[in-house]
Amino acid sequence: MSFSYSRTIHFPDTDAAGVVFFTNYLAIAHEAYEEALSASGINLRTFFADTGSVTPIVKSEAEYLRPLYCGDKLRVTVTPTSLTPHSYEIRHELFRLGTAEKLVGRIRTEHICISPANRERLALPTALAAWVSAS
Amino acid sequence: MSFSYSRTIHFPDTDAAGVVFFTNYLAIAHEAYEEALSASGINLRTFFADTGSVTPIVKSEAEYLRPLYCGDKLRVTVTPTSLTPHSYEIRHELFRLGTAEKLVGRIRTEHICISPANRERLALPTALAAWVSAS
Amino acid sequence: MSFSYSRTIHFPDTDAAGVVFFTNYLAIAHEAYEEALSASGINLRTFFADTGSVTPIVKSEAEYLRPLYCGDKLRVTVTPTSLTPHSYEIRHELFRLGTAEKLVGRIRTEHICISPANRERLALPTALAAWVSAS
Amino acid sequence: MSFSYSRTIHFPDTDAAGVVFFTNYLAIAHEAYEEALSASGINLRTFFADTGSVTPIVKSEAEYLRPLYCGDKLRVTVTPTSLTPHSYEIRHELFRLGTAEKLVGRIRTEHICISPANRERLALPTALAAWVSAS
Repeated sequence: MSFSYSRTIHFPDTDAAGVVFFTNYLAIAHEAYEEALSASGINLRTFFADTGSVTPIVKSEAEYLRPLYCGDKLRVTVTPTSLTPHSYEIRHELFRLGTAEKLVGRIRTEHICISPANRERLALPTALAAWVSAS
Repeated sequence: MSFSYSRTIHFPDTDAAGVVFFTNYLAIAHEAYEEALSASGINLRTFFADTGSVTPIVKSEAEYLRPLYCGDKLRVTVTPTSLTPHSYEIRHELFRLGTAEKLVGRIRTEHICISPANRERLALPTALAAWVSAS
Repeated sequence: MSFSYSRTIHFPDTDAAGVVFFTNYLAIAHEAYEEALSASGINLRTFFADTGSVTPIVKSEAEYLRPLYCGDKLRVTVTPTSLTPHSYEIRHELFRLGTAEKLVGRIRTEHICISPANRERLALPTALAAWVSAS
Repeated sequence: MSFSYSRTIHFPDTDAAGVVFFTNYLAIAHEAYEEALSASGINLRTFFADTGSVTPIVKSEAEYLRPLYCGDKLRVTVTPTSLTPHSYEIRHELFRLGTAEKLVGRIRTEHICISPANRERLALPTALAAWVSAS
């Protein structure tokens, strides 16, 4: 079962077209990813700092299906899948809550674990690998 | 009694110094303001669009007392006070939760209600004036 | 020939990993798109507001090839291609300047022209269609 | 004579009210500060990372005098003044270019040099002190 994250759209998420700026769909998906990691016991403060290995996003794909407005309530799913011993993908769906829940966006990110020193590929840290395989 | 808003620090809030970028203390305070308005029954989607009157922020003051890191949990207070028939200020305190709650920032914003057409001052809309005086 | 946009990486572009946050590659590509439109004579203030038609981004794909640091200088290309009478794609390449220019990212966005009232597809406005076909 | 920085307003700077979000006046002022430091020979990539001392912003004050729209061209001044051996302030004025240049914002930030390890006050690094006194 996917992890789900609840998020309200705020004014700084929007742009002069009156709706959420497209890159903020991706930033909100990243928040959901952080909450999923945190719920699995991973410490965010050290995870995203350089601690022997880093797992940058190397690819993203997004579909923006419906506009989002200030005050809208979202549910964002987080579904990781292992790709190789040093990489994984995460799929997200963003749903706008209301009388009928509507799919408003789909996002896929690809993450590779590397050494920050020489940028060579590394196996995922144990806690991260456990989260990927358990989700 | 002040309205209180709960917020977790996310990765997009931070900068290369490893902590929350100073302008994001203000953006987080604005989120708290939005939640306070929403809790009082004001519709955010129309409030922040041009609907006969707008209430831009004309001044801000902020004290950044302690750094904030990814994963930190905050409580943000929202205390509005009427200044004139067409303006109000909001005071915010940001507390980092933990074994002992710590004050990490203080913010004050000043808001003036104007006509978007000619930028002349207007009396606050009824629902907004009610929120300011009731808080 | 592609339009080229010059951009310096600033501190608010970065995150606690010390490098540019992935969604900001896309935001920087959007800035380049704006500059290309502006150079072709399109007024940005009215273009991105609702003026009978809007052209939201409906898809994005991005490859993040190398990290970017505060102070880095970029050159960003903008290459639009018509897809249908009411849609186009833009391809961007981001190069970091230096003793040797390095490709640091590739971005593709897909734009569809619609009516903001009923979200039905519309032909591109003349100036926009001219920019797409001339670029 | 003050350092001056040129900046175009881009779409990600704006919000659903159709104008630049208030915190982005401060972020743009910070960009101007970075450009001034860079012009004086300071390396931004290492300056904002932890290198024995950090100089966080501890206070900000801002006046938002006029709205800014996508495509607007700005000139931003940067005027530092020493406060104590371990602190300085920077004053910024933001002008919108056009047939007549208009003052659109005034910003003041206060910076204190501290040790990242124990947060005790430190004397400014030599290059930074030289920039403050020469500007």
